[in-house]
Amino acid sequence: MEKLTIVKVGGKIVEESESLQILLNDFSHIQGYKLLVHGGGRSATRIASQLGIESKMVNGRRITDAEMLKVVTMVYGGLVNKNIVAGLQALSVDALGMTGADMNILRSEKRPVKDVDYGFVGDVKEAGGEALSKLIRAGVVPVLAPLTHDGKGNLLNTNADTIAGEAAKALAQYFDVTLMYCFEKKGVLRDENDDDSVIPEIDETLFKEYVADGIIQGGMIPKLENAFAAIRAGVKEVIITQATEISSGIGTRIR
Amino acid sequence: MEKLTIVKVGGKIVEESESLQILLNDFSHIQGYKLLVHGGGRSATRIASQLGIESKMVNGRRITDAEMLKVVTMVYGGLVNKNIVAGLQALSVDALGMTGADMNILRSEKRPVKDVDYGFVGDVKEAGGEALSKLIRAGVVPVLAPLTHDGKGNLLNTNADTIAGEAAKALAQYFDVTLMYCFEKKGVLRDENDDDSVIPEIDETLFKEYVADGIIQGGMIPKLENAFAAIRAGVKEVIITQATEISSGIGTRIR
Repeated sequence: MEKLTIVKVGGKIVEESESLQILLNDFSHIQGYKLLVHGGGRSATRIASQLGIESKMVNGRRITDAEMLKVVTMVYGGLVNKNIVAGLQALSVDALGMTGADMNILRSEKRPVKDVDYGFVGDVKEAGGEALSKLIRAGVVPVLAPLTHDGKGNLLNTNADTIAGEAAKALAQYFDVTLMYCFEKKGVLRDENDDDSVIPEIDETLFKEYVADGIIQGGMIPKLENAFAAIRAGVKEVIITQATEISSGIGTRIR
Repeated sequence: MEKLTIVKVGGKIVEESESLQILLNDFSHIQGYKLLVHGGGRSATRIASQLGIESKMVNGRRITDAEMLKVVTMVYGGLVNKNIVAGLQALSVDALGMTGADMNILRSEKRPVKDVDYGFVGDVKEAGGEALSKLIRAGVVPVLAPLTHDGKGNLLNTNADTIAGEAAKALAQYFDVTLMYCFEKKGVLRDENDDDSVIPEIDETLFKEYVADGIIQGGMIPKLENAFAAIRAGVKEVIITQATEISSGIGTRIR
């Protein structure tokens, strides 16, 4: 099968014009089929605040009430997404900005209320791998905003890491998928105080050892658990790296 | 050639949830290939005002400064466009929201400053009829926001009537295009005080007579001139009507 690279970048990178330009340039140099997933939380918080809407967070996750849903629809689906698309077009990348509603590529259900009511947040139920794969084979580069829809006319806010993971799993039937998660560090570090202590490769056995030894801890555990879930669902490899390394391929490789 | 219906609706219809729902329902009943173009000026003005940005208008046209460009990118490309897409998907219409930057379908140039500096406003230079026609033949229903791009990474604000006209002309090579412009009245009226005095059909000869007789005047003159320009460029027919009549086809027919 042909290779497809899916890159997920967080809000910080895409919200500052200098780092965005570097990212788009690097992304444009990735060979072969590709797809970009972006965040935009910082801009959403800023615009919400300017509109007098308070950003409520619980356990680091946003509570999306009706007013905040409008803000994220504007910011993720409009401001951030369309500026990325225009920037990629200027680099001759045939970008197409999409939410999960567009061509019904990511259908979700509103998260049931348990301990916390996250509001208009969607858990992905179905990904339209076939529609996406056809676009990609036609030379289109999808740029996905972290929004899904419930099939009943409602948009829902969905975490960008989840969007990337679900798109990767759905596209694994059609391509050899490399999924790159960009964060602040060059990869998973053996020593959190040493940025050069990147662990080059981790499999599930090694992961369990590192967790038992306390080398991998905190927020990195769910990130890697998601990576292994993607691998089990057919994704060829997951790379955890820094946005500046997406064309070099340097980082921690999960297989 | 197969038929394609292009419907352009203004901001007022798509910004109120009740009229939007009626429109989407009527639009979903249009048989065959179709495409929707929407405005959103009222929402843009409202959101801008909430953000403390003043909406400057000259001769009824918006001045788009850098801050207003961000607002229209959010509102047209995000809020309005994505809610339409989600609403159509709920009606089993395989909608795909696009600006002119997406798949490079509408490339424009920033309007040169003459008497008035309209700011970040784009005059369409090139329309990607082929890319659009392939999507449409694949069963996709494009939903176009009134934004274009200059190919250098910048989005530009472009009038929705112009977007509809340019898309219609570019698609006339591939389809028998019917272009429907929706406005407040059921069509071009013989007597502006009588809503039932719709002129059923106008050709260029009749148009000149009506203008000479003062029956057609004001803002309707450029609207009809644009319609005749579309016809001369290969569009099969232009229908000027009310949003509630898009599935009936009632209105003034220009050929």
